[in-house]
Amino acid sequence: MTVEERIKTSIRDVHDFPKKGIVFKDITPILMDNDLTLELVRSMAEKVKIWNPDKVVGIESRGFLFGMMLANELSIPFVPIRKKGKLPYDTVSIDYELEYGTASIEMHADAISAEERILIHDDLLATGGTADAAAQLIKGENAEVAGFCFVINLSFLNGIELLNKYSLNNISLATY
Amino acid sequence: MTVEERIKTSIRDVHDFPKKGIVFKDITPILMDNDLTLELVRSMAEKVKIWNPDKVVGIESRGFLFGMMLANELSIPFVPIRKKGKLPYDTVSIDYELEYGTASIEMHADAISAEERILIHDDLLATGGTADAAAQLIKGENAEVAGFCFVINLSFLNGIELLNKYSLNNISLATY
Repeated sequence: MTVEERIKTSIRDVHDFPKKGIVFKDITPILMDNDLTLELVRSMAEKVKIWNPDKVVGIESRGFLFGMMLANELSIPFVPIRKKGKLPYDTVSIDYELEYGTASIEMHADAISAEERILIHDDLLATGGTADAAAQLIKGENAEVAGFCFVINLSFLNGIELLNKYSLNNISLATY
Repeated sequence: MTVEERIKTSIRDVHDFPKKGIVFKDITPILMDNDLTLELVRSMAEKVKIWNPDKVVGIESRGFLFGMMLANELSIPFVPIRKKGKLPYDTVSIDYELEYGTASIEMHADAISAEERILIHDDLLATGGTADAAAQLIKGENAEVAGFCFVINLSFLNGIELLNKYSLNNISLATY
């Protein structure tokens, strides 16, 4: 099997989470499998390195799981984007809309510099709202979005369309 | 410099976070330094492997950063412990007391098995309340606590004393 097939085989569908009618893609079985975890990270690194990223930004909290390993596989720094109020130093923040209400994410203001090429990573792309907000934080620092890298893309939610305005570079290893 | 000295040099003190009078130990500069990140993870792995852990449990969300890399360095599975309502499958959960109010953490019920030896990892040990709760989750599954592994120990808060009843095995790389 290819790594993409092994990932799809490993992901567990959980019905009616977080609410009735939703089928949640549970990645925790991947974390139980060292070989698959390493292959996943190496596969992502192989695909994104041609975008020449200077740093990986990972979105709290599932974006921390593979994001740190990805940054280290690429030998570039890892920058966490976190929910409001969690990062201790000077931050830049952005509010964005969720299905119900709004959320806010933050990044340390000194974490990225103008003109750096930033790879945005999260485990899952759904509607793209969070990744879009992350891209706005990066553009706000006058840095470039090198591309987007997800493990899972729920393509029927058309998240990629929202992100194309920042970069046409995007990959996901398991598309539904 | 030793890895411990390099970690202490890299950690940034942020005063009055999350509230006045507290000096917060900011680990994000370590994440910017690939060499130090790898040395940190390898140093932790070297110290804990003699406890023969079967799995690493990492506590959301900063425990995900080095926890995943530690599990992979040890070639054993990674199990996330998350805040209530985040894990999609059947969970076991526990409430515990914070300085103000209570919190609740969860683990997938099928993530660990009876008699397995579980290494508990978080980035920072303060009063030990969260690590204590994680240990209770593990004991509740009739598994063993192989030990505790932190990057930072705020030893003046005596967190280790709270954890000794589960295991005398504990390490931290930067003690204050």
